[in-house]
Amino acid sequence: MDGVILTPLKQINHQKGDIFHAMKRSDIGYDGFAEAYFSTINTGDIKGWKKHTKMTLNLIVPVGEIEFIVYDEDKEEFESIKLSQKNYQRLTVKPNVWMAFRGIGSYNMLLNIASIEHDPEESINKSIEDIKYAW
Amino acid sequence: MDGVILTPLKQINHQKGDIFHAMKRSDIGYDGFAEAYFSTINTGDIKGWKKHTKMTLNLIVPVGEIEFIVYDEDKEEFESIKLSQKNYQRLTVKPNVWMAFRGIGSYNMLLNIASIEHDPEESINKSIEDIKYAW
Repeated sequence: MDGVILTPLKQINHQKGDIFHAMKRSDIGYDGFAEAYFSTINTGDIKGWKKHTKMTLNLIVPVGEIEFIVYDEDKEEFESIKLSQKNYQRLTVKPNVWMAFRGIGSYNMLLNIASIEHDPEESINKSIEDIKYAW
Repeated sequence: MDGVILTPLKQINHQKGDIFHAMKRSDIGYDGFAEAYFSTINTGDIKGWKKHTKMTLNLIVPVGEIEFIVYDEDKEEFESIKLSQKNYQRLTVKPNVWMAFRGIGSYNMLLNIASIEHDPEESINKSIEDIKYAW
């Protein structure tokens, strides 16, 4: 889908505890650093829909499993991406793509490396019913 | 200790899953973004000692509990900092401070927001016995 990039990430095994790559400034999808924060999502709960008009999101799931649904409203096209330590990839979401996400595991956490600082003025929210998707 | 900054971070409660701040580019301790990665550490295991000569580390513990020991070799001064969701702070470690860390919880994960990309040439390792600390 336009505006959506999925990039496999390295996991490095270590006997004292593994290392998980998240993002380098030289990586595909990197659009500047303004803020990094974690968001957790309870099992079965859904956060969304939200569309950013300026922010590029770079999403990594180091704990649990999260299903992301991205929606291109011009093409009326949906895509589902499930991320976890098993499918360890970074999901880049550029501006103007609708997104919602659902917790699948028992404790689910994403890291967002955001290209601009949080600004409620640059994002648009819709309730989950307003964009029909067969969750 | 010189070269070590501890900054309280915001946790925002949300009924569908909480949000945990990590770092903004306008924050104290921010020294540029080059790489973000996760490191896990098993219960009771210790990673270290390591001293970076160029990298500033910004360490956040979103999962479990990790004890960080920083060491100023000129002043022969140690400091212990335990981070977790309960003591949710960001630990900034500037270049030339020795550091080691130990897993305390059952699953322990840190995020490092590093000012330069990984480069084995810029860091110095010592075995855990080489700097005596009463773990």
